[in-house]
Amino acid sequence: MDVVDRLREVLPDDVVVTAPDRTEGYRYDRAMFCPAGVPAAVVLPRTTDQVATTLRIASQTGTPVVPQGARSGLSGAANAVDGGLVLGTERMNRVLEIDPANRLVVVQPGIFNADLSRAVAARGLFYPPDPSSWEFCSIGGNLSTNSGGLCCVKYGVTTDYVLGLEVVLASGEVLRTGRRTVKGVAGYDLTKLIVGSEGTLGVITEATLALRPESARPHTVAALFASTAAAAQAVSDVVAAGLVPSLLEIMDAASIVASAAYLHQDLPLDCEAMLLAQSDLGGDAGRAEVARIAALATQAGATDVIEADDPAEGELLMAARRCVLLAFEALGTTMIDDVCVPRSRLAELMDGVAKVARETGLTIGVPGHAGDGNMHPTVVFDAADPEQARRAQWSFDEIMRLGLDLGGTITGEHGVGVLKKEWLAREIGPVSLNLHREVKRAFDPQGILNPGKVF
Amino acid sequence: MDVVDRLREVLPDDVVVTAPDRTEGYRYDRAMFCPAGVPAAVVLPRTTDQVATTLRIASQTGTPVVPQGARSGLSGAANAVDGGLVLGTERMNRVLEIDPANRLVVVQPGIFNADLSRAVAARGLFYPPDPSSWEFCSIGGNLSTNSGGLCCVKYGVTTDYVLGLEVVLASGEVLRTGRRTVKGVAGYDLTKLIVGSEGTLGVITEATLALRPESARPHTVAALFASTAAAAQAVSDVVAAGLVPSLLEIMDAASIVASAAYLHQDLPLDCEAMLLAQSDLGGDAGRAEVARIAALATQAGATDVIEADDPAEGELLMAARRCVLLAFEALGTTMIDDVCVPRSRLAELMDGVAKVARETGLTIGVPGHAGDGNMHPTVVFDAADPEQARRAQWSFDEIMRLGLDLGGTITGEHGVGVLKKEWLAREIGPVSLNLHREVKRAFDPQGILNPGKVF
Ligand SMILES: Cc1cc2nc3c(=O)[nH]c(=O)nc-3n(C[C@H](O)[C@H](O)[C@H](O)COP(=O)(O)OP(=O)(O)OC[C@H]3O[C@@H](n4cnc5c(N)ncnc54)[C@H](O)[C@@H]3O)c2cc1C
Ligand SMILES: Cc1cc2nc3c(=O)[nH]c(=O)nc-3n(C[C@H](O)[C@H](O)[C@H](O)COP(=O)(O)OP(=O)(O)OC[C@H]3O[C@@H](n4cnc5c(N)ncnc54)[C@H](O)[C@@H]3O)c2cc1C
Repeated sequence: MDVVDRLREVLPDDVVVTAPDRTEGYRYDRAMFCPAGVPAAVVLPRTTDQVATTLRIASQTGTPVVPQGARSGLSGAANAVDGGLVLGTERMNRVLEIDPANRLVVVQPGIFNADLSRAVAARGLFYPPDPSSWEFCSIGGNLSTNSGGLCCVKYGVTTDYVLGLEVVLASGEVLRTGRRTVKGVAGYDLTKLIVGSEGTLGVITEATLALRPESARPHTVAALFASTAAAAQAVSDVVAAGLVPSLLEIMDAASIVASAAYLHQDLPLDCEAMLLAQSDLGGDAGRAEVARIAALATQAGATDVIEADDPAEGELLMAARRCVLLAFEALGTTMIDDVCVPRSRLAELMDGVAKVARETGLTIGVPGHAGDGNMHPTVVFDAADPEQARRAQWSFDEIMRLGLDLGGTITGEHGVGVLKKEWLAREIGPVSLNLHREVKRAFDPQGILNPGKVF
Repeated sequence: MDVVDRLREVLPDDVVVTAPDRTEGYRYDRAMFCPAGVPAAVVLPRTTDQVATTLRIASQTGTPVVPQGARSGLSGAANAVDGGLVLGTERMNRVLEIDPANRLVVVQPGIFNADLSRAVAARGLFYPPDPSSWEFCSIGGNLSTNSGGLCCVKYGVTTDYVLGLEVVLASGEVLRTGRRTVKGVAGYDLTKLIVGSEGTLGVITEATLALRPESARPHTVAALFASTAAAAQAVSDVVAAGLVPSLLEIMDAASIVASAAYLHQDLPLDCEAMLLAQSDLGGDAGRAEVARIAALATQAGATDVIEADDPAEGELLMAARRCVLLAFEALGTTMIDDVCVPRSRLAELMDGVAKVARETGLTIGVPGHAGDGNMHPTVVFDAADPEQARRAQWSFDEIMRLGLDLGGTITGEHGVGVLKKEWLAREIGPVSLNLHREVKRAFDPQGILNPGKVF
């Protein structure tokens, strides 16, 4: 009996999907240039038990399993593999518990980040990790890629909010990691090892997440600069002054131009960079923090500085940043990169990318999380033109090389997937790569979980 | 040739110590009731190379190696094993680099927490993890037990500050994990897996740590309560109000009595609990936060509330908490436990410990990190009296059972070592325990690193 028949024998009918018109939609995430296989079936379980059953049968039959959230990934990590199972978590999308006294929430993996965030906000609580994709990405995917977002400059990334996990191992055994307490050092930190492991170590079926009290209404400032160096200087000065804004984003000229066109807005097109910062200290403290950032920006050479006390006005200033990926998509096919460099190397990264853009003749915009040094150079090209596609891929590689040369990493928050496998090996080197293989073997001796991804 | 001869052949003379009068001092950490072996030698390397050489020879000869920091541990994790090597890091105690622009510091493992903290404070920077032992514990030890401290209620624990590590593996190979950037998701998070692994996965020879800007001068408040329930209610109310004090400590009656005697001070001896809180927001914001905590304490039934604007006055209020372990030691032999429960179960934990104290007739004080639910019930007994020693050990076990029953963990920050091995198995269960063994094997197939510890 093949794997699909065995699954059908024990799982409810609608959990095992094989109709090609339905499985087709589960083959790819949102990455460019990443191959995907044709799965034998898409399994859409409702319970941890059904996940465990699926993995037990998969391990008995040696069948690959690709855990999948909402396929918003940008590295091909969730792409199907030939003859394997896609294990989608879309039906396991409930909030199981909100515990305000202990500031935590327990959720199933398939819930969208925005739905979780809204559910806890309704109780006066705040789940900080806020990837731009928050309306269409799952917490399971966030956990598995250790997602960041706009507010991680102040509040950190997904791993900083994970207290404990329920994980189905390749064998079908159910592992519980971590705890409900805010501290704990009993045994190895398997929780944070599984976070960021891109579905290669187990399937997350439940997560206990720490929350923060809700923040005050943001104060916002936007500053324009005649050079990336001046904007980067302002970022360094903010850091050196000991300020910790709740958001500190940058856009280069190409990003501003694209967003202006997309929004049909009169953005200043003669500047080389725009910084956006927010404070969520609230009241006078918030106003004062933003005023200090504005002063530092002016001192670093900003040509124009606009402060907004009102959150709605602040969102208007933020609009260009929020829409920038859509703006690039309106111009052509996009490849979004995700390198992270030490904050002090920001200008070098931006100038380096500008050089790559000149060399290839392609538009490459550089929006990013300036406060973290995590930038998303986005290559825009015509996918129908093989020569442009070739140049786009070349630029992508050049940008990763640049990131590494500047003492950075090939991925700040999007993960490795299939897109950056070769580059991972370069970044971490042979000793680490070998240890990665051994750790993988410890969890998944047959190698059935998301094979061919990461390394 | 035996292992010591082989080490002597390749390492400088003074690195390999075998004189029993010198090695004796390296056998034990500060835990009670934990056996220690007699080591074949104590190796005190100056460089990563010397650490690598030691481990290469140890793995070739199948010799156990116990990594050791400053032996301030409270679980026997650093205790020597018979015929093995103790690998002490005391000579690798330098700050290698302070990088204010990127808010990070690079250190060797043997540096004391206080020395690191002072070095970065001199540059206007702040390394938050502040175990009470900070004047006599090493960063390597802090990393390996994921140490917490007083300010982790606001700023988190050691793992939250580790960007990257250099680690010598059991084989002698040198592994680099992590990065210098604030974000990064390239590959598994081996960094955070090694943090808290109590010397069983590798020897940390260098660490890159994130820093924060220095905080403002603290405002302090102390509040006295006629019941632990009222004090615990105040803690819950502070959390529920969305406040995040930079310190939130509690002392029960036994702790207050002991500290009063030790300090020869007139502390109020008729109360059942004292809460101590600080705000490091500074200025008006700090004063306001402390005032809100004071108001919540009063509302929860505090019989007396004292606020201190002046940091020196604040330290006077803190004195009782800071000296409490010494105060207990003045009364007899002490066993310090370290359970962590959900914050909402604090009163139940304290009352449960009081019951154990009544049942055994021993003094058991309960000071702790109230804001984290991480308490240090401390059993005071006469070690020369076998019956008292038996009861002390029984109490210790009862307290761990209580912690688990309340949905907590057997160790919030001190680690497992040899002291809590059996209890670890109960807390994490067979699936996790088995996975721990496999992960250990991935790093250290021969099992030479700190054998017999943790699990
Ligand atoms: C427009 C846009 C903006 C984006 N902005 C950001 C951003 O600001 N920050 C950021 O970090 N990312 C961003 N991303 C990338 C992406 O949204 C995130 O990586 C997200 O976390 C993926 O979640 P997902 O549910 O879509 O996961 P998927 O794409 O389905 O899967 C991602 C990985 O997680 C694994 N996985 C998913 N669920 C589970 C599970 N339950 N158990 C085990 N493994 C699982 C998969 O196997 C795969 O390896 C953006 C993407 C887009 C398209
Ligand atoms: C009075 C007192 C108060 C304390 N207060 C606190 C507190 O508030 N918070 C807290 O968390 N702890 C506290 N502790 C416990 C202890 O100080 C910490 O666990 C500390 O981190 C141990 O550091 P150490 O250098 O003394 O390590 P050691 O005791 O020497 O070793 C501890 C563990 O780390 C391993 N290790 C040490 N260095 C390395 C290395 N370079 N590579 C790999 N493994 C290594 C050892 O093998 C061992 O497993 C306290 C202890 C005392 C005595």
